[in-house]
Amino acid sequence: MLIKEKVEQAKNLLKEFDIDCWLTFARETQINGDPALAFLVEADLTWHSSFVITKTEAHAVVGEYDRLTVAELGVYNSVTGFVKGFKEPLQKLLKELNPEKIAVNYSVGSEICDGLTYGMFLTLQNVLSEIEFENRLVSAEKIVSALRERKSKTEIESMRDAIRNTEDIFDLVSKYITPGITEKEIASFMKKEVEKRKLDFAWEEKVCPAVFTGPENAGAHYAPTGRAVEKGHILNMDFGVKVNGYCSDMQRTFYILRDGEKVPPAAVQKGFNVIVEAIEKAKQGIKPGEIGESIDKIARTTITSHGYDEYPFGLGHQAGRFSHDGTALLGPAWEKYAKKPFQKLEAGMVFTIEPRLTVPDHGVVSIEEMIIITETGSEWLTNPQKNIILV
Amino acid sequence: MLIKEKVEQAKNLLKEFDIDCWLTFARETQINGDPALAFLVEADLTWHSSFVITKTEAHAVVGEYDRLTVAELGVYNSVTGFVKGFKEPLQKLLKELNPEKIAVNYSVGSEICDGLTYGMFLTLQNVLSEIEFENRLVSAEKIVSALRERKSKTEIESMRDAIRNTEDIFDLVSKYITPGITEKEIASFMKKEVEKRKLDFAWEEKVCPAVFTGPENAGAHYAPTGRAVEKGHILNMDFGVKVNGYCSDMQRTFYILRDGEKVPPAAVQKGFNVIVEAIEKAKQGIKPGEIGESIDKIARTTITSHGYDEYPFGLGHQAGRFSHDGTALLGPAWEKYAKKPFQKLEAGMVFTIEPRLTVPDHGVVSIEEMIIITETGSEWLTNPQKNIILV
Repeated sequence: MLIKEKVEQAKNLLKEFDIDCWLTFARETQINGDPALAFLVEADLTWHSSFVITKTEAHAVVGEYDRLTVAELGVYNSVTGFVKGFKEPLQKLLKELNPEKIAVNYSVGSEICDGLTYGMFLTLQNVLSEIEFENRLVSAEKIVSALRERKSKTEIESMRDAIRNTEDIFDLVSKYITPGITEKEIASFMKKEVEKRKLDFAWEEKVCPAVFTGPENAGAHYAPTGRAVEKGHILNMDFGVKVNGYCSDMQRTFYILRDGEKVPPAAVQKGFNVIVEAIEKAKQGIKPGEIGESIDKIARTTITSHGYDEYPFGLGHQAGRFSHDGTALLGPAWEKYAKKPFQKLEAGMVFTIEPRLTVPDHGVVSIEEMIIITETGSEWLTNPQKNIILV
Repeated sequence: MLIKEKVEQAKNLLKEFDIDCWLTFARETQINGDPALAFLVEADLTWHSSFVITKTEAHAVVGEYDRLTVAELGVYNSVTGFVKGFKEPLQKLLKELNPEKIAVNYSVGSEICDGLTYGMFLTLQNVLSEIEFENRLVSAEKIVSALRERKSKTEIESMRDAIRNTEDIFDLVSKYITPGITEKEIASFMKKEVEKRKLDFAWEEKVCPAVFTGPENAGAHYAPTGRAVEKGHILNMDFGVKVNGYCSDMQRTFYILRDGEKVPPAAVQKGFNVIVEAIEKAKQGIKPGEIGESIDKIARTTITSHGYDEYPFGLGHQAGRFSHDGTALLGPAWEKYAKKPFQKLEAGMVFTIEPRLTVPDHGVVSIEEMIIITETGSEWLTNPQKNIILV
């Protein structure tokens, strides 16, 4: 079971980083759910809920009505239920454990480690100050990052399953695309396939898939439009599904042959080849100990050295329970990425690689592959696109 | 359109409370989505995104790839897209507006107003300190509360639609329940009906509906079990659906007649009558200006005066985009409810009323109705249950 696996992993991470207590503190989790909760409990929680992990133990303090659901997971040494307030049982538990540092889920640089709201931080500080523990709070970024990023066997299996389904659906839609059909119709065909297979969408359904045909299309993150596929268009799609809560995230590039064409025009083929080359070179650079900024630079300079504009985002992100997951990023040293491009790559991380470039008058070439970092380098999780899909 | 309606309402609330700027600040909103965003934008956002509302204007600073989606809403006076960082455009905008106070979404007492994470608070404080605005931050609790709680016409229509569907499904399932059938089977019948109607579940699907049959059932918040309905059981259900993002939340009580019984035993009927009486009396007390603590007390003492134990939670909560929504609560003065029971009731708020009691050897009687507060009192949104449903 995932939760058992991840709670054990968390205890080991506390040993590795020598932090003696990790506290996840949340309330009404259907409204403001800390993303770390997915590894600690399987249900939404109503009242102020505390999950306390140490190097050797796990404890929970939750509303009485959530007690049984948490206790049945069988991973907590104690599950305390309260009716009127969480303060007393939490203070009692922490006093017994008496940790030097209490790591909580906040981070300036990593949204995935930043589930604690400011109001809950103030609440916690107040509760801890009554037992003179208020100076023990530290950021749990290292713990939460590693817990999310170092994927377990179960997690990888779910992701492989999601990827296989995504590839199947790309295959099916490649036979459906034809001149005259709109971006919306293509998206609708794919959505029906997702529903038929009882999968979840990897991100907001409105833009999953995102479909872009031809020059001057709307650009990334924009919902499919009524724009029709035309001969001579490059068409690209961004699409992913979720299996057991784990995501795929892939892009594929298509070209719609004009009358008399057997192969794409040289400019289109050149753009495609440059993207494939950029992905391949970036992948070769990936191994534990490297940083994402260097990997991004490999792909970025491959593209600019062929005379194209650089892509206006990072080369690749991690994937997991969210399509954008994890802290370390294959990205440039831009303000909005903070320290993410400088975090060391580790075995077990799953990354996308997704450079793009524009071929004037035809459209956008964009491929997104997924890889997993191994002890010595990386392995493809996707079957990488090596040929432009011809329609 | 909802967003147009709510952004206008927000400007008016800023006038009413004399606050000159409300800032919602979020990133990767599929991971940590501020619940206030639903009133400001229709899509998930990737990078640090700022929505700045004043008494007369609305502005947004978002990642370049989200710019078009936000601009097309047609409610923002300016939408600035950035590629490398949000800091400069946000600082520029705030310096131009030069507000005395900047209200941001944090709250100790109200989770629905507490969407700003601690990491994002620190980020914002840092960005503001560079322009010497760091002492202008205040809590937006009043604004966010009122915006969520004072329902617009569109919002009420969606909720009425959700309630009508919930009542229909309760009717259908009442003909399906029979001795021998399990809680799980009942839940599965209702879930199919939700899917057939293409509705969403009002809360976590695992416990929507929650179904409890007989004495010693698992208690609230617990998933349906393999426990079978038996003659002599009281059965209760907690169920709601979502229409256009707005929730219903209702409970109904059933009794399974024993051989030879035409009516429930006196103890069951008495328990049921007390719950109906408690709801009716509480509803009569509800009007603008009252506080939830007094309303809870009316129902609580009705129940204890008949010799039953008091229910171990608040009498009722608001509903809206979440089944538990809003700040003001019909609840007792318990630590976990903080100041919520003492906030004044206002016209336009939608509340549940949901007392419960146990009838020994039979089960739990629990009814949950929904009302909307009017200028002079309240109106039923549900068709209130006045008779125990006999199976």
